[in-house]
Amino acid sequence: MTKPDDQRWMALALSLGGRGLGQTWPNPAVGCVIVKSGRVLARGWTQTGGRPHAEQHALSQLAEGAAHGATAYVTLEPCSHTGQTPPCASALIKAGVARVVVATGDPDPRVSGRGLAMLQDAGIKVCAGVLEAEARRDQQGFLLRITDNRPVLTLKLASSFDGRIATATGESQWITGPEARQQVQALRANHDAVMVGGSTAREDLPSLTLRGMGGRRQPVRIVVSASLNVPQHGPLAEDNSGAPVWLLHGEDAPQKARDFWTARGAQLIAVPKGGAGLDMSAALQALGQAGLTRVLCEGGGSLAASLLAADMVDNVVGFTAGIMLGATGLPSLGALNYPALDAAPRFELASSRQVGADVMHHWQRFVS
Amino acid sequence: MTKPDDQRWMALALSLGGRGLGQTWPNPAVGCVIVKSGRVLARGWTQTGGRPHAEQHALSQLAEGAAHGATAYVTLEPCSHTGQTPPCASALIKAGVARVVVATGDPDPRVSGRGLAMLQDAGIKVCAGVLEAEARRDQQGFLLRITDNRPVLTLKLASSFDGRIATATGESQWITGPEARQQVQALRANHDAVMVGGSTAREDLPSLTLRGMGGRRQPVRIVVSASLNVPQHGPLAEDNSGAPVWLLHGEDAPQKARDFWTARGAQLIAVPKGGAGLDMSAALQALGQAGLTRVLCEGGGSLAASLLAADMVDNVVGFTAGIMLGATGLPSLGALNYPALDAAPRFELASSRQVGADVMHHWQRFVS
Repeated sequence: MTKPDDQRWMALALSLGGRGLGQTWPNPAVGCVIVKSGRVLARGWTQTGGRPHAEQHALSQLAEGAAHGATAYVTLEPCSHTGQTPPCASALIKAGVARVVVATGDPDPRVSGRGLAMLQDAGIKVCAGVLEAEARRDQQGFLLRITDNRPVLTLKLASSFDGRIATATGESQWITGPEARQQVQALRANHDAVMVGGSTAREDLPSLTLRGMGGRRQPVRIVVSASLNVPQHGPLAEDNSGAPVWLLHGEDAPQKARDFWTARGAQLIAVPKGGAGLDMSAALQALGQAGLTRVLCEGGGSLAASLLAADMVDNVVGFTAGIMLGATGLPSLGALNYPALDAAPRFELASSRQVGADVMHHWQRFVS
Repeated sequence: MTKPDDQRWMALALSLGGRGLGQTWPNPAVGCVIVKSGRVLARGWTQTGGRPHAEQHALSQLAEGAAHGATAYVTLEPCSHTGQTPPCASALIKAGVARVVVATGDPDPRVSGRGLAMLQDAGIKVCAGVLEAEARRDQQGFLLRITDNRPVLTLKLASSFDGRIATATGESQWITGPEARQQVQALRANHDAVMVGGSTAREDLPSLTLRGMGGRRQPVRIVVSASLNVPQHGPLAEDNSGAPVWLLHGEDAPQKARDFWTARGAQLIAVPKGGAGLDMSAALQALGQAGLTRVLCEGGGSLAASLLAADMVDNVVGFTAGIMLGATGLPSLGALNYPALDAAPRFELASSRQVGADVMHHWQRFVS
């Protein structure tokens, strides 16, 4: 049975959980609010690196017995298995909460209903499914990793009015304005990893680090290059930001390049060939296997097209500037070659707004 | 001297004037509100075809003497010259209004301050410049025709997420949804003319008529084709909508094509060559000479690029759909070949919003 304020408290828990997006992989970013007599006793969220879990983080703020008879709002079913810490379900029982409200179940086969069952067996009232759609959207990466063995993929494309990401001569700084670029930093901050293709790495020499966002965990920096043709100078090879570098390459990539990057501490991941480059489904499965739940692809056009062709794109974030570059500019998407409009990938508009001088628009996979 | 409610009444007059946009060429679309003791006595706007003028339309609703001592809010300086009707300034004087508030002056050399002077000479209090920027935006076409001898030009481009207006095989129906297409009809309704390039005319066989917008004046339908290569079948050649067809062509266009279109009642306008096709500045001057104040260009990519290259684009309206067509799709803009980002045309974001499943974004020329 839901109660009148359940949605309100769950919305708060979801907002707390959102703080952990991009920070907690391979664990989910969960939020927890402990409420008694209409007052919030504690707020918790999964901490950077994935521990403590949200429930433990909230309970740790309370004196012994303070949560007795309280209600805990948790955005994901509390865990029931002993990992590096005792299960959260046990912690809630031990704290004496009277009721637990959960947004969505945890499909992890080690949990999958056992968390809720443990609570009920201990005499705690359990209510599940409050703001479930919102929670599943936030947990999309964690859930996909369990159901599809891959992280959620967001494709970010910042282009001119006519869909170009650089002039014919390759000039791309800056098409969009500083406010849009700040939004890109915010996207990096809530993803586990930032991914670009080899030609973007070669032409832009990007750092792919998180800047100006406080002490958040740096995203993993991923370059996809079948031939491991990644520039051996510039920020990816030389910086000491502490942000990991992972390179997805073909199984026949040159040993010399592998040796170079291994010596630099990069993680090399061999992926089968497919389409014009690597098999993108296999590539994302490898990233999921390595623990990633949320990956942001920042282009270029060829990698974006490969991901779309492999049906691996879950969200698209566009930034459109008011500059006109014309047909000789570099296209934001490589060739897709769909024979008809009906066959082309189509996304559903989630939101759009002005960001500085540009338009930011967010699209998502149609859910049928 | 302005009074506290002046802006409020002028905003109403502007909104009335907006009803005439696209309907009144070659005359401006003006709005007029007559107010006495805080109550609206009459609302007027320039009627279809350009007459009666807004002031006459408003005064015609009042009994003799009713406007005595009232204030008239007019979005453009009342005319002072006798054309097909007596001047509006005289009509206001005759009606006995005590005060006239004007948004912006009329630079027409036959008026240009004389309207205001006539009113003042008659002892009427005159206040000018209320909501002037808003009025000048609405009057942009009328003003440009006087200052630059050309209509205002709005470029509309409806494209896929990646800036494509058709698949590689030319399929373009439908990239955007019905709500976006309805907005295009609204754009046609407030422009004097709709303009496309020859290849769009050949490939899409468009009707370019106004549909589902009630009894509004049909816009002039303009095709730009240097060689007058316009299909001699389909709606432009065959319909009986009453919407005029004007063809802009090169001076060496084949006589046979000229004869065909002349026999169909089309108006042929020869324009000097320039760039890859016709001289777009000369083309727009010819349209201004013919009386047009507001022209909507609906593509295709080559014509849009020619207009941009000639710096003839004042407003851009984009519709972005969530479909991905890739680099083999038809580009929304032809080649522009600017050497550097700094040299490329850039527009200022005026507004953006969701329209059905698509994003509609409106950009305007930077005013320095």
